[in-house]
Amino acid sequence: MGEKRRNFIGGLFLVVVLLSGCVSGDVDVNIWPMPKSVKYGGETLQLSKDFGLETSGTNFSDHFGDIERWFFEILQYGIDESYDLYIPSNGDSVYAHLQAQTVYGALHGLQTFSQLCQFNFETKTIEVQQAPWSIADEPRFSYRGLLIDTSRHYLPLPTIKKVIYPMAYTKLVLLLIFVSGFGNITMGVGYPQLWPSPSCQQPLDVSNEFTFEVIDGILSDFSKVFNFKFVHLGGDEVNGSCWETTPHIKYWLRKRQMNASEAYEYFVLRAQKIALPHGYEIVNWEETLRNFGSKLSPKTVVHNWLDRVGGGLVQKAVAEGLRCIVSNQENWYLDHLDATWKQFYMNEPFTNITNPEHQKLVLGGEVCMWGETIDTSDIEQTIWPRAAAAAERMWTPLDQLARHPRKVRGRLSRFRCLLNQRGVAAAPLSWLGRDAPTGPGSCYNQWLYNYNTVQKK
Amino acid sequence: MGEKRRNFIGGLFLVVVLLSGCVSGDVDVNIWPMPKSVKYGGETLQLSKDFGLETSGTNFSDHFGDIERWFFEILQYGIDESYDLYIPSNGDSVYAHLQAQTVYGALHGLQTFSQLCQFNFETKTIEVQQAPWSIADEPRFSYRGLLIDTSRHYLPLPTIKKVIYPMAYTKLVLLLIFVSGFGNITMGVGYPQLWPSPSCQQPLDVSNEFTFEVIDGILSDFSKVFNFKFVHLGGDEVNGSCWETTPHIKYWLRKRQMNASEAYEYFVLRAQKIALPHGYEIVNWEETLRNFGSKLSPKTVVHNWLDRVGGGLVQKAVAEGLRCIVSNQENWYLDHLDATWKQFYMNEPFTNITNPEHQKLVLGGEVCMWGETIDTSDIEQTIWPRAAAAAERMWTPLDQLARHPRKVRGRLSRFRCLLNQRGVAAAPLSWLGRDAPTGPGSCYNQWLYNYNTVQKK
Repeated sequence: MGEKRRNFIGGLFLVVVLLSGCVSGDVDVNIWPMPKSVKYGGETLQLSKDFGLETSGTNFSDHFGDIERWFFEILQYGIDESYDLYIPSNGDSVYAHLQAQTVYGALHGLQTFSQLCQFNFETKTIEVQQAPWSIADEPRFSYRGLLIDTSRHYLPLPTIKKVIYPMAYTKLVLLLIFVSGFGNITMGVGYPQLWPSPSCQQPLDVSNEFTFEVIDGILSDFSKVFNFKFVHLGGDEVNGSCWETTPHIKYWLRKRQMNASEAYEYFVLRAQKIALPHGYEIVNWEETLRNFGSKLSPKTVVHNWLDRVGGGLVQKAVAEGLRCIVSNQENWYLDHLDATWKQFYMNEPFTNITNPEHQKLVLGGEVCMWGETIDTSDIEQTIWPRAAAAAERMWTPLDQLARHPRKVRGRLSRFRCLLNQRGVAAAPLSWLGRDAPTGPGSCYNQWLYNYNTVQKK
Repeated sequence: MGEKRRNFIGGLFLVVVLLSGCVSGDVDVNIWPMPKSVKYGGETLQLSKDFGLETSGTNFSDHFGDIERWFFEILQYGIDESYDLYIPSNGDSVYAHLQAQTVYGALHGLQTFSQLCQFNFETKTIEVQQAPWSIADEPRFSYRGLLIDTSRHYLPLPTIKKVIYPMAYTKLVLLLIFVSGFGNITMGVGYPQLWPSPSCQQPLDVSNEFTFEVIDGILSDFSKVFNFKFVHLGGDEVNGSCWETTPHIKYWLRKRQMNASEAYEYFVLRAQKIALPHGYEIVNWEETLRNFGSKLSPKTVVHNWLDRVGGGLVQKAVAEGLRCIVSNQENWYLDHLDATWKQFYMNEPFTNITNPEHQKLVLGGEVCMWGETIDTSDIEQTIWPRAAAAAERMWTPLDQLARHPRKVRGRLSRFRCLLNQRGVAAAPLSWLGRDAPTGPGSCYNQWLYNYNTVQKK
């Protein structure tokens, strides 16, 4: 009660598991996404039957306040997600040690640990091969997102939960739920005066002050409930023809000597000015940079989707000092069934960006599961394993990433089997998204087939 | 402790829910599968916030022994699955009453009750429309099965659990897990002497007494663990060429003046004779009836799969006094993606069987999810909603079933939405199995679209 709180979150020291030495093995590192630094040996350990987790050696005092603080810690953008995992091999009984600065780092470390555990059907024990392990890990990008779209098809809560679990397995941290945008707002049902007219309903009426009052009100309400750093204000695919054809807006435009694209600029910039005092930084789709980039708030994060990586758009954004998120559709839109897992893996946000100051402005990426033909019946296998391929691109340091997808095919196929074992309906690795398996064979054999095929090439 | 146990399971009287009267409504009966008898009114009731289940008025005494007996009751073939559900509408607060002879009847009744409950987003309460309800229900067939195939692709436990939950929703009671058959036995890996030779591995060596000792041993072990009425001895797609080409079997055949098809008959009939003393009744695929029907044990259940219903095979089986299960592949094989939900619904086991004594020999049916191209990634949407269509055919009395699938399209679409809401990846109703949704729109709107299309036709 009277103790002083430390001002920083110190090391959490989790004693995770009691192990005992056994025979040795020799296989590859099967962790997805690949950690920053991995060292391993050749011993096999078995989890003891009284396996458990212990927290000890922590810098925290044990009183309830600190525990509470830990578990309610907010996953804020840029939070320390690093962890160190050490599994020794010598001694009759050994402990695995997990150290992290935040609960999120600790969770990532536990996910990695779980991937090192395998059930041995002969000894009927869970074992860790290749001990001792020494893993030091942290993410390359803080912004590692997956967007799901509940506006085209309603996704019930059990479905959204089924998406979240594998996100934790792949160390993705941002679930973005698309409800509606300026291009397709459902808000107008409650406030029909937001529409240009009942017969021409989008974009929102730019001439009506009430439109901006509603945006202000929503952001105000939002900021009280959600302690988020960013708000996405959209601004993509705006078609101003409703503005040009609805009499009162047409009159308003003429009075101000604006055409529809100038009104679009006016709309986006005004929405930005509304959002900033609420403490938000703003995300806008790349069209806003293309059309009036120099006028955007310096607090804008440009969200790429049209331009391919290396095509110029991301370079332009960061050269102008704006931050950027990568979601280029040809490689990172999950609804594009012709985008293969290889494209998801090889999509490099830094393409043609060599200046380290510019690189710092690339916050990360977001794979997008737009919902026109996706609902509860097909969302899982459309997302996985392709989103996992992108997750490694966003997590693992650039110099640790494979230069060619054939180098990771076996490891990703094996990770897909792990997803299946955990009940996730991840599709086989193939040319198209959500392909059915081509014939009989265990998931593990499919992996061996892939693996052997790769080795021979 | 000292009390006498009753010899029969009396009525269970479940007080399920406290309700209060509200406004009236008028919609169709949305229950899948349709109960035997349904009466309803026009009142809407709301579930009270302290909603709960109570058992009272039961014929059982309350001591632990009876409760235990209830919950460990075995789902034996032919058990009483009937229930009566009554939801009154008058009075300030009312109770729903569920009465059943077994825990399985009670579970079916609770499933029906849950389908009558809908969340009202305006009042934020769960409501029951169309009260009062009076439902008397029992299955048409006792044998209502779904086969899944873990031999072609391993299905992990979470996947099998995901299949079981919707079976309960659709009142399917038999999950048949295919591990291996005479045609594709994995047993030979442990006992290579069961194979004709290492290079010609199936069917099992008919000339080796050890083959039959192993079958005997397996059935003996099985009968100690599983208290099942039936054992499936296979006997389909047997190709005797390994017997004809392997020298020691070729010699054995010549000595007995048998050809391969006579040896196949010998094998099946000997396996039947082994199974019977273990207390099992036997299921054999229809090829056994076609080839040596008159020699089959009268305890044989013929499992149809090749012949269409009404094609003669089922009629032949029941005319010979044998029982029969229907799984005709063109309508009830789920791996046939071109078999539509309409075919699953309209597949009538009694086709061309009018004699009531013969009808009694048709035990029911089994939809089959063979696994050549099915694994964790696509099994759910390949099974549902088509298996649900067949489930109504097997549950609902023949004279209550729709004569044309358009009559049930709206109700089944709506049930598919319920499956989705419960997290089951059931595909949209369309021409092919597991089709993706064709475009944006809520699941409920898809239903209205179907419903309106039907009404106009």
